[in-house]
Amino acid sequence: MTRDDTGGRPRPVVIDTMGGDHAPEEIVAGAVAAVREHGVRLVLVGQAPRVRAELERHGVTGEIPIVHAEEALAMDEGALASWRKPRSSVAVACHLIKTGRASALVSAGTTAGVVATARLRLKAQQGVLRPAIAVLLPTRPRPTVLLDSGASVDVKPEVLVQFAALGTAYAQVALGVPRPRVGLLNIGSEPGKGNKAVRRAYELLSSGHHGIEFAGNIEGGDLLTGAVDVVVCDGFTGNVALKTMEGAVRMAMAELQQTIRSSATAKLGALLQRRRLQALKARLDSETYGGGVLLGLNGTVVIAHGASQARAITSACLLAQDLAAGRIVERIRDQIAATRTSRFGWRHGDKSDRETKPEQEPPVPPEQEAGRDLPPPP
Amino acid sequence: MTRDDTGGRPRPVVIDTMGGDHAPEEIVAGAVAAVREHGVRLVLVGQAPRVRAELERHGVTGEIPIVHAEEALAMDEGALASWRKPRSSVAVACHLIKTGRASALVSAGTTAGVVATARLRLKAQQGVLRPAIAVLLPTRPRPTVLLDSGASVDVKPEVLVQFAALGTAYAQVALGVPRPRVGLLNIGSEPGKGNKAVRRAYELLSSGHHGIEFAGNIEGGDLLTGAVDVVVCDGFTGNVALKTMEGAVRMAMAELQQTIRSSATAKLGALLQRRRLQALKARLDSETYGGGVLLGLNGTVVIAHGASQARAITSACLLAQDLAAGRIVERIRDQIAATRTSRFGWRHGDKSDRETKPEQEPPVPPEQEAGRDLPPPP
Repeated sequence: MTRDDTGGRPRPVVIDTMGGDHAPEEIVAGAVAAVREHGVRLVLVGQAPRVRAELERHGVTGEIPIVHAEEALAMDEGALASWRKPRSSVAVACHLIKTGRASALVSAGTTAGVVATARLRLKAQQGVLRPAIAVLLPTRPRPTVLLDSGASVDVKPEVLVQFAALGTAYAQVALGVPRPRVGLLNIGSEPGKGNKAVRRAYELLSSGHHGIEFAGNIEGGDLLTGAVDVVVCDGFTGNVALKTMEGAVRMAMAELQQTIRSSATAKLGALLQRRRLQALKARLDSETYGGGVLLGLNGTVVIAHGASQARAITSACLLAQDLAAGRIVERIRDQIAATRTSRFGWRHGDKSDRETKPEQEPPVPPEQEAGRDLPPPP
Repeated sequence: MTRDDTGGRPRPVVIDTMGGDHAPEEIVAGAVAAVREHGVRLVLVGQAPRVRAELERHGVTGEIPIVHAEEALAMDEGALASWRKPRSSVAVACHLIKTGRASALVSAGTTAGVVATARLRLKAQQGVLRPAIAVLLPTRPRPTVLLDSGASVDVKPEVLVQFAALGTAYAQVALGVPRPRVGLLNIGSEPGKGNKAVRRAYELLSSGHHGIEFAGNIEGGDLLTGAVDVVVCDGFTGNVALKTMEGAVRMAMAELQQTIRSSATAKLGALLQRRRLQALKARLDSETYGGGVLLGLNGTVVIAHGASQARAITSACLLAQDLAAGRIVERIRDQIAATRTSRFGWRHGDKSDRETKPEQEPPVPPEQEAGRDLPPPP
């Protein structure tokens, strides 16, 4: 799927221009910057007349190909949108990846809608039981990968081991860490701590037969200390932890502003520091590292923050290009294969696992297959 | 168990003087302050000669009764300590509650050890499937109760409903909120979000037949906004969220100090603001609201932060006294009864629930029963 079938020329990144609070204006603006300033090859998917008008506003005509899509996922639409809107811009974009005409997808659409559509259209790559959304936490000296931040809840221990493999591949490609250290998010550092799934995952990861550099349990308080390169957890825990972290930083900053404002003698200092504090807030704020990457499907999906402005979209395009160039899908395949040749002894596509999946992927009815009569890519 | 069988005189709060990083010095100092400044009735449990020596240092002799306990739980000891040390200070203190000679326990010992010992000695109160640790989050205008923060992992939906009942009783007694609003910690605000246990708990709580003021799902980002009075989750999620929050605040403050220090022009302002910022940090820091309250057993256990100094111990003594005076155990009994008379239809002590408990309470062998030959309380 990810092999280069365009004669050596890298396949373009496809952008969903219709997803996000500021679509399509900011999305197209970010795409134009990615092309002009960074030379990224792009395809834009969306309502062609609107996208063309936006491109013209930037003085771009004919340089960036457009693929028309009738529909768009609304920002308040959930997972069912993948069924209700078989010709949404996200579905059409996935089709371009599936047919080898694009390498990776960028969307600032609703996470639930994008994930559901991508799962339905791209399918899990071979050997992967469940996909995961990886996000980067703003640690020093380099970011920490947290996954899953919300794609897969109620996961089995074997799935947590696979998340360790996905995270390892992602840290290698996106952060350039040769042997990423992987921690298991838990409620204590000792073995034997945690719920059933985590306790068993600890045993599996400790066995050391899967090419993962397992660093043991880490606690919530270690997420921002850069103690490990990759933190693994189920999608429920990861989502709660991520949003809790964002909320805590927001609260601390609000308290700080309150403190500064309420102090007459400190006003001078506050003025002097305002700019630095704003820079700090931006670094900690969710929007700067906003969004995540959906890993484990036949094609990589960069989900930008819904509130993304042009700059965030440009960053997302660069990340998507880097991941495609780093052959993330192949890296994941190799990592997953390493976990499977170990003695964990679970079967790929284990029936019992599928039965307990709340968001099990239904088969796509032929009449809902999107984009089958799409024009060939330019 | 909590009825007043001392002829109208309130029963004393019992303090484990041997638990905590600064035991027994700071524990005894905090106890002395609670007695002298607030008139709390106390019993101290611990190695009598050491406790007596500490009391003498404060010029207190004979005012505060001491009950001797040979052993103490080490700060690195886990749940097994409850078995290994049947005569630990915590076990002896629980025995005093069980036999009606004390109303509530304060310990700064290791959470795992205190919880395991208390569960073994005090037992779950009638109708309660699993105990929970409630902590107070520093929201405004009043704190928010979060439970469970780590006592019970792998819980069924019915247990989450019970946690809502425990949290309601706690908010009523500790915060004086007549009808506390209860939120379910989840990964989205809509019904149908979350893992299996949480989705089912949402249905049960929405049925509205249990005397709980259910306010729906809340997300991690809402934990510190004071959106609800009580937040309910399983002990794994709660522990991760709490530690993540503490870590994020710590990180934000460290970044802030870094920012202030690195800015030459801002040094003056930093000097002016230092005191206010320290006050802010103290408010946000875990140690100020440190510790939690173990709810659902036949007796209330206030678990102070392991690093507690005297002042934190004094606060914990006051909280324990307030909870006992507010008849928290009876309030919980009534709340639990309200959930049971609703149409949830689960059976108390459901066999299938017990089978899946990782930390199932084993029966106490008669030879390990602690403190059976204790001297009668003074």
